[in-house]
Amino acid sequence: MSDRRRRVGGWGFEGERYPLPPDLLQWLQHRLGPCDGRVADTPPDVRLPGPRALPAFPLEIGREPHDRLAHARGQGLPDLLRFRTGTVTSAPDGVVRPTDDAQVEAILRACAAAGVRAIPFGGGTSVTGGVNSVAGDTPVVALDLERLDGLGDVDGESGLATFGAGIRGPALEAALARYGLTLGHFPQSWELSTLGGWIVTRSSGQESLGYGSIDALVAGLTLVAPAGRLELGARPASAAGPDLRHLVAGSEGRLGIVTRATVRVRRRPPVLVVTGTVLPSWRAGLSAARDVVQEGVPLTLLRLSDECETTVGMALGLARRGIVGTLVRRWLAARGAWEGGCLMLLGAAGDPSTVRRTLGDARAILRSHGGVGLGRTPGRRWLSDRFRHPYLRDALLDAGVATDTLETAAPWARLERVREAVGTALTSTLVHEDEQVVVLAHVSHPYRDGASLYFTLFFRCPPDPAQAIARWATLKRAATEAIVAAGATLSHHHGVGSWHAPWLEREIGPAGAALLGDAARRLDPTGILNPHVLLDPTDRLES
Amino acid sequence: MSDRRRRVGGWGFEGERYPLPPDLLQWLQHRLGPCDGRVADTPPDVRLPGPRALPAFPLEIGREPHDRLAHARGQGLPDLLRFRTGTVTSAPDGVVRPTDDAQVEAILRACAAAGVRAIPFGGGTSVTGGVNSVAGDTPVVALDLERLDGLGDVDGESGLATFGAGIRGPALEAALARYGLTLGHFPQSWELSTLGGWIVTRSSGQESLGYGSIDALVAGLTLVAPAGRLELGARPASAAGPDLRHLVAGSEGRLGIVTRATVRVRRRPPVLVVTGTVLPSWRAGLSAARDVVQEGVPLTLLRLSDECETTVGMALGLARRGIVGTLVRRWLAARGAWEGGCLMLLGAAGDPSTVRRTLGDARAILRSHGGVGLGRTPGRRWLSDRFRHPYLRDALLDAGVATDTLETAAPWARLERVREAVGTALTSTLVHEDEQVVVLAHVSHPYRDGASLYFTLFFRCPPDPAQAIARWATLKRAATEAIVAAGATLSHHHGVGSWHAPWLEREIGPAGAALLGDAARRLDPTGILNPHVLLDPTDRLES
Repeated sequence: MSDRRRRVGGWGFEGERYPLPPDLLQWLQHRLGPCDGRVADTPPDVRLPGPRALPAFPLEIGREPHDRLAHARGQGLPDLLRFRTGTVTSAPDGVVRPTDDAQVEAILRACAAAGVRAIPFGGGTSVTGGVNSVAGDTPVVALDLERLDGLGDVDGESGLATFGAGIRGPALEAALARYGLTLGHFPQSWELSTLGGWIVTRSSGQESLGYGSIDALVAGLTLVAPAGRLELGARPASAAGPDLRHLVAGSEGRLGIVTRATVRVRRRPPVLVVTGTVLPSWRAGLSAARDVVQEGVPLTLLRLSDECETTVGMALGLARRGIVGTLVRRWLAARGAWEGGCLMLLGAAGDPSTVRRTLGDARAILRSHGGVGLGRTPGRRWLSDRFRHPYLRDALLDAGVATDTLETAAPWARLERVREAVGTALTSTLVHEDEQVVVLAHVSHPYRDGASLYFTLFFRCPPDPAQAIARWATLKRAATEAIVAAGATLSHHHGVGSWHAPWLEREIGPAGAALLGDAARRLDPTGILNPHVLLDPTDRLES
Repeated sequence: MSDRRRRVGGWGFEGERYPLPPDLLQWLQHRLGPCDGRVADTPPDVRLPGPRALPAFPLEIGREPHDRLAHARGQGLPDLLRFRTGTVTSAPDGVVRPTDDAQVEAILRACAAAGVRAIPFGGGTSVTGGVNSVAGDTPVVALDLERLDGLGDVDGESGLATFGAGIRGPALEAALARYGLTLGHFPQSWELSTLGGWIVTRSSGQESLGYGSIDALVAGLTLVAPAGRLELGARPASAAGPDLRHLVAGSEGRLGIVTRATVRVRRRPPVLVVTGTVLPSWRAGLSAARDVVQEGVPLTLLRLSDECETTVGMALGLARRGIVGTLVRRWLAARGAWEGGCLMLLGAAGDPSTVRRTLGDARAILRSHGGVGLGRTPGRRWLSDRFRHPYLRDALLDAGVATDTLETAAPWARLERVREAVGTALTSTLVHEDEQVVVLAHVSHPYRDGASLYFTLFFRCPPDPAQAIARWATLKRAATEAIVAAGATLSHHHGVGSWHAPWLEREIGPAGAALLGDAARRLDPTGILNPHVLLDPTDRLES
């Protein structure tokens, strides 16, 4: 994996693609109308402003345009549009790659003294403007943490392992595999994103049902900030005052830089099985998901697609198998489970006997909700593609279709209302422009008291990037407003970044925002650390 | 339950006792020497200082000596000694019982304006000096939250219920039982302590292995403070910045008063079974406990006593059954499991078939560690007495034996070192006074990565309360120092209070303490809220 070269300004690795299934394009064009706009797929020469002077740091500063561009923005749709069209207008003035805490400290102190903004950069996969270099009067330096990637202590007895926070998913799991261990944290960005990035964005992996979100997996950490350092030792639990790990988790680089973390690991499961079931309706699917989780069935993964996403999933997965797909659909239709049917994937990990028992318990509950089993094929396809879906965005843009995702979480009793509110906001916003929006939704992180809701939207992409970004921003504002108005959370796992920041106070109130502001001032008195995320209420969707 | 009258200045309810088993006293006297000191068991007239003037509040102020005394201190050993000997020298100048948020706000504003200290008082069961009225220049008012005890919304679908934070365990469970629901949070203080108290001390219930500690059970809450109010809505999960619920949890009344909380509840299990097993040694018991938890066996309770506590447990439980106890011991001895044997209790809750399966899975693991099953008798006894053990302190004091408990948590790999360090600190501290200390230990809250360690200590109680408290303080300092030096946490579930506060910075560092100080200043700028807990480094063990 390490020999694959990271693509600059786009998702993933050079040479990787996810070819657009013709069925999907046809299905989308049928709903959106002809997609004539074609966004450029090779950027014209990007003309970044010349790098401004930076203070002296105790290590080399990268100033190559290529390096600066690679650290200029994250991976949200507007980032992608700007990268593709050569309209990235601001970038860090330099990139530094510290190798230890002392260097991080020295860099932050120098930045604080010189009033230089410092943006911690892990995998760079933020879809909330979390690493973007905002244009401004003061220089910007990106701290790429890729060299803080070592494995420290492994305590197999306690199931604890300490890593440099810049380590990426595959390297982390490979290091643990040598001990027969796993962290079990697999966000969609897993191949690119880093342990530190997971922590500061409160990431959830696809198997969070079994392993918990990253908050639950972090036992201890080190945070280095301009005005201090927080060392929180690994403890299984504590009542020694408020849990400051939860102040660092979600702090998005605003309070300091997580340089190291001790995570809770466990024995690598011999088997991971994902099976598919079709539920007769979204409501039946929600009830079934709720029952499975509230009964405590120890699945590691549960994913329920709504009708529309199920159709697309079939187009991407089962239906590609031609005659088999057709037969499966006929078989399901004969059982009344196809029209309006919703696909649920269930995953279980462990010894084969445990996995069998777990999936059996879950399927018994699903059957009582009208579920019809599809076996392991859909799960196998999903597993093999699970880190590759983001590449589809490029293929869609090549075909003139823009796509984005957004997400939230709410209690079960309000989940359907939230889905309707967000769906209505998204589909009714561009109607006056005579533009259609297609919205898919799924639940992928269920809890006893509620679940996440994940939306994928598609709209026709105007060829002019500014116009495309404006259209996206209109949709994003409408959806975010609907989420917050419905009392759902601003984000289940994408974080706040700079794009959601204007809405954060609606969720945590003025007292909550003031508390976070105080924490930022304490650790970063001159406000140089990633200052546009979390607490800056400026709307930066189009900047 | 509600017709039982709370005892003033001692544990629990009037008329309740836990008679001292003669075997236990004999066993202790054999180790401690003759316990001639007898601490008075009826206090002489307590002469509280006359109440100082308080500002006008929008509700009645209790000024009766009896009421003031009942709110003067918590339930730690030195509190008990002072209550019993009439040496309580400081008490709140008045007690108020607000009925809603507006009253709490008005009281706090009036206190802030007048510089009056305000101590939130829930169940008053703190064993860390968490509610103690410290003598000082400024008047003190106790906010007894017992009238904030209503049940708000119940959302059975999501498993969420909202309560006034002053509700006590039995009333909370009785309200939920009407919906077939349970919170599953059963700390030893359950009959007396309150939901709000559990939250602000990060309480763990005896079945935390199944239900999680209170941190995991709180979905949303309201915190009222002199300078603001924090409303955190109930959400199953979120990545919208740092999780401020975890700043409130553990804040011990220093940041504000939790007036209301929405908790995660679940279906009331039809069956709770607790069974006993003897493991051949403490080490075997630890390994077995670790395996059971790391294998993910869904127990709700696991409790492992060390050799010494096992002996005492047998004296309190099995051995009371005379001939049966003798036979059990002979049977165990024949299997080599008695000498140095350690008792483990395992609990499982749910449908009978689930419980059977769970206990079967656990027992299979225990057998591989040499465990010998004892059936349900020890568990039944423990269950029937589980909220009554604290009454034993009084019976012991009547017999001249002082007893206290303290606790911590650490990763599995360091657990035995921590037990040894604390044990050595406790048993070697009074040796120069020619006094012995008996120490029992158990694990009662295991996690994948470690466990709590709970110590019970016994020493001869001098009849002079000041001397008794000084002896206790010497032991407490030695044990706390050993805990912190070993890198274990200052507390697993008793909290920080004022007694552990001098050590808190050793655990969270100066930056951590500064962050908490900032939060306190933000919400309580004049520092009137329970100012001696958490952040005040003064040693108050003897005050």
